[in-house]
Amino acid sequence: MPVLSWGKTYDRGQWSADMLAAGIVTLMLIPQSLAYAMLAGLPPQAGLYASMLPLLAYAVFGSSRTLAVGPAAVTSLMTAAAIGQVAAAGSADYWAAALVVALLSGLMLTLMGVLRLGWLANYLSHPVISGFISASGVLIALSQAKHVLGIAASGDTLPELLPALWRGLPQTNGPTVALGLSALLFLWWSRSGLKPWLRRIGIGQRWADALAKAGPVAAIAATTAAVWAWDLAAHGVRVVGVVPQGLPPFTPPTWNPALWTELAVPALLLSVVGFVESISVGQTLAAKRRQRVEPDQELVALGASNVAAAFTGGLPVTGGFSRSVVNFDAGAQTPAAGIYTAIGIAVATLLLTPLLHHLPQATLAATIVVAVLSLVDLGMLKRTWQYSRFDFTVVGATLVTTLLAGVETGLIAGVGLALMLHLYRSSRPHVAVIGLVPGTEHFRNVLRHLVLTSPQVLGLRVDESLYFANARYLEDRINEAVADHPELQHVVLQCSAINDIDASALESLEAIEARLNEAGIRLHLSEVKGPVMDKLAGTPFLKQLSGRVYLTHYQAVAELAPHSLA
Amino acid sequence: MPVLSWGKTYDRGQWSADMLAAGIVTLMLIPQSLAYAMLAGLPPQAGLYASMLPLLAYAVFGSSRTLAVGPAAVTSLMTAAAIGQVAAAGSADYWAAALVVALLSGLMLTLMGVLRLGWLANYLSHPVISGFISASGVLIALSQAKHVLGIAASGDTLPELLPALWRGLPQTNGPTVALGLSALLFLWWSRSGLKPWLRRIGIGQRWADALAKAGPVAAIAATTAAVWAWDLAAHGVRVVGVVPQGLPPFTPPTWNPALWTELAVPALLLSVVGFVESISVGQTLAAKRRQRVEPDQELVALGASNVAAAFTGGLPVTGGFSRSVVNFDAGAQTPAAGIYTAIGIAVATLLLTPLLHHLPQATLAATIVVAVLSLVDLGMLKRTWQYSRFDFTVVGATLVTTLLAGVETGLIAGVGLALMLHLYRSSRPHVAVIGLVPGTEHFRNVLRHLVLTSPQVLGLRVDESLYFANARYLEDRINEAVADHPELQHVVLQCSAINDIDASALESLEAIEARLNEAGIRLHLSEVKGPVMDKLAGTPFLKQLSGRVYLTHYQAVAELAPHSLA
Repeated sequence: MPVLSWGKTYDRGQWSADMLAAGIVTLMLIPQSLAYAMLAGLPPQAGLYASMLPLLAYAVFGSSRTLAVGPAAVTSLMTAAAIGQVAAAGSADYWAAALVVALLSGLMLTLMGVLRLGWLANYLSHPVISGFISASGVLIALSQAKHVLGIAASGDTLPELLPALWRGLPQTNGPTVALGLSALLFLWWSRSGLKPWLRRIGIGQRWADALAKAGPVAAIAATTAAVWAWDLAAHGVRVVGVVPQGLPPFTPPTWNPALWTELAVPALLLSVVGFVESISVGQTLAAKRRQRVEPDQELVALGASNVAAAFTGGLPVTGGFSRSVVNFDAGAQTPAAGIYTAIGIAVATLLLTPLLHHLPQATLAATIVVAVLSLVDLGMLKRTWQYSRFDFTVVGATLVTTLLAGVETGLIAGVGLALMLHLYRSSRPHVAVIGLVPGTEHFRNVLRHLVLTSPQVLGLRVDESLYFANARYLEDRINEAVADHPELQHVVLQCSAINDIDASALESLEAIEARLNEAGIRLHLSEVKGPVMDKLAGTPFLKQLSGRVYLTHYQAVAELAPHSLA
Repeated sequence: MPVLSWGKTYDRGQWSADMLAAGIVTLMLIPQSLAYAMLAGLPPQAGLYASMLPLLAYAVFGSSRTLAVGPAAVTSLMTAAAIGQVAAAGSADYWAAALVVALLSGLMLTLMGVLRLGWLANYLSHPVISGFISASGVLIALSQAKHVLGIAASGDTLPELLPALWRGLPQTNGPTVALGLSALLFLWWSRSGLKPWLRRIGIGQRWADALAKAGPVAAIAATTAAVWAWDLAAHGVRVVGVVPQGLPPFTPPTWNPALWTELAVPALLLSVVGFVESISVGQTLAAKRRQRVEPDQELVALGASNVAAAFTGGLPVTGGFSRSVVNFDAGAQTPAAGIYTAIGIAVATLLLTPLLHHLPQATLAATIVVAVLSLVDLGMLKRTWQYSRFDFTVVGATLVTTLLAGVETGLIAGVGLALMLHLYRSSRPHVAVIGLVPGTEHFRNVLRHLVLTSPQVLGLRVDESLYFANARYLEDRINEAVADHPELQHVVLQCSAINDIDASALESLEAIEARLNEAGIRLHLSEVKGPVMDKLAGTPFLKQLSGRVYLTHYQAVAELAPHSLA
């Protein structure tokens, strides 16, 4: 348990650094918790509850020194999409379903960690994540537009959200829009403009840094005050309302096999997305201080955090990007900062919730919109287009599918497509006919270089490990080459780029050898790597090989067609 | 169309060679057609019908000169498994469903050929095929045991078949067992013993060759005569019964969207298995005469054959292994041999079907059992165990799943597992820390060789193309290495075994570079391949790279840590 290693040497210096960081993160986490609970369609306290016990669990199990866990934008959207299919928004069942998602996700993450299955997350390739996160950002921003406009509109996809917003437009509420747009503009400006302005009005570097993080808190305070002062709730401005004071309740999750089965796939997708987000930020921050995070330990820690959320009425959590960066920049030294943050949120929940009564939902929506728009990275489309058409196809398909068919379908389609294209690509490896570069012992592609070849000896270089998906392609290529070279007596396979040969490829090599043999052609190998040679050593293929295994391709040609070297 | 190329130069010599081969194949195909129709649960004429028009279709479209198409063991088993789920065995719906499977399979194969998707069949790796075919052989043999014993028993899997046979055992019919076992023993012996015996009794080499193929015909003739002479049908021996005389009927397939949807996946699996079997034997035979088969053309040809089967009351067909070898050995020169075979089957259907009335089903079952037991290759388990644990796992899992859960589940599970293990393997590539072999310019793995290294410069060699599944693993390995080497100033990645870098890996390299940068370490590359360098050339990664790209690893170390070379 990581807590045992940093806990033993915990000192006063670390304590004060952690306390400062915790104070700043608490200030940031309160509005985020309320906002992401709203995004998931849950009461505001579900967000606060998710920011207490889960943080303690992460502090005990987490291997990152500075990761700050809690509710996050994309996982909250995925929670909403998952539970929206099984319960009506706002009902008690709806919240209960969110707790089941948190529990399932927690159990799955823990299991993956214990079984050391963290590598499974690798199949979420960058193009898939990029397309998925951008599309999620757009969907989240659109889903919040109704709160900024003060209208009713619902939907999980572009084809549902856009018409709903359009139909609702005539009901736009003036005071809500005024508050929402003001908050939106202020928050947008404060992201880059607040700190320089604070410095300009004479505030010191350190305080300016800290206060700049409190932009959302300022927006909340100002708009809450405005609602209270002018009684805007009576003029149609929706407010957060009553948030119960007190510590999180104990909420044993509902045992309902049908519900669990239905939520299993969404929970798995949410787990993997949350883990990828969390591990990325964790690794980035750890590397800055030459520390390490253990992916499998992180799975266990996130799993424990989500189980903690499930039992204390919280929505699913993960390591958040922006708050972890703030925690790191503020100087957090150990996961104890998370414990102090949890205490800060608990104190706020005990004392400050009455102040949240008049907080307009439009302000929370504005904080979400500003946060998620930075997730939308359409430049990725252009960059991948320039770099690789395959990757572009994956980004584009994931983006469009997520927008049109929702987060779950989009993610599955993206992963499936990426796998298919990868396999397609490696199933048609680059195979070059090679000849001797005159005056050297090097062999190069005949299509790119002026080289010497012999009609009796065919040299082939395969630029890929041989496995089942490309084994038969190699057979085809050799059959072709043999049919095209009537005088052929020898085929020499240069194996310098072959890192592995699986059983299928071995059978293909045997088939190739048998066919060449029947056509009176001998098969040779050259430059076989050590580990591959070890594997081939005991096989009948090598024993029955009609030709030889040469150390270098040059030696092979020197022996088989010495006249061609002149 | 391949027919145009060989048809133009067709001469008398080819004609007589093709006629001889067709005669022998016809003799072999009659009992096979009847037997495989029985295996699929269809009336015997369905097998004969599948051996007429489909052969003509293949002769027109096929690119193999010697492939003999018709009903085959494994595809007949898969047909039975598919249609057994949608109709009662023996009903009119059952036969109609078989025609739908043939039509769907035909359309899918044609479409795959037109879209040039033949490479998809590559994902059926040798271990999957091997496990699947062996398990199918066992299932087929067990499913025929009831006919040899003269009892009733049904089932598609081991857990269904074994208890059913056990329960039926008390009802064993004496005369049936006598006939069945005699046929079984004779056929088993005739596979290797008939030809030497014929030679010993003074028959010439050529006639002995031809007559040895007629073992099944002899068994059929003898047991049919026995049934007729002793009226064994009255003693409980089940016979083929009335086989309608005449050419195949025109059978427009049933248009039933629900049925088509239900049969789509089984038809796809059957198509792929049939194609793989057919292309393997086609390529083997073509290579012997330095000819070529075109995989995509073969798809079209098999597709046309199955469509032809669907419209003429036949069960699904594919290129059969044993009969193609016989066709080849008998000297067939062109696909016209298939046309003559079809004519031979048509003549037999017109004239000889009354003779089949007393043919015992036990004899047909015996021909199937003998044919499929040669498919069971348990030695593959041992060979793959020795060669690779991964491949062994795939063979074993496919074998066991097919036996326990049936052909469709077994095949899907095998393909899925093979893909997962392949991705797992390539997601954890071999990464070696390398050092200089003293007195050379070569760098080798520090764990295998006595080499020179420097605490400031870390050389790493990755033995795999970089793509999404292993990109993050590389990040982990580099993070680890950096955390372990406090004095580190330079990381040099030797890229000689990297054949491609996809967009995910590029992002990982950017992340690695950024993290190293923040820790004050510079990243360099060495020995980057031409095509990879072309791809990297325009990217921000290369422009912002803190280090350099060196032509050779030696140059890199010579510049970065000259003292370490001494």
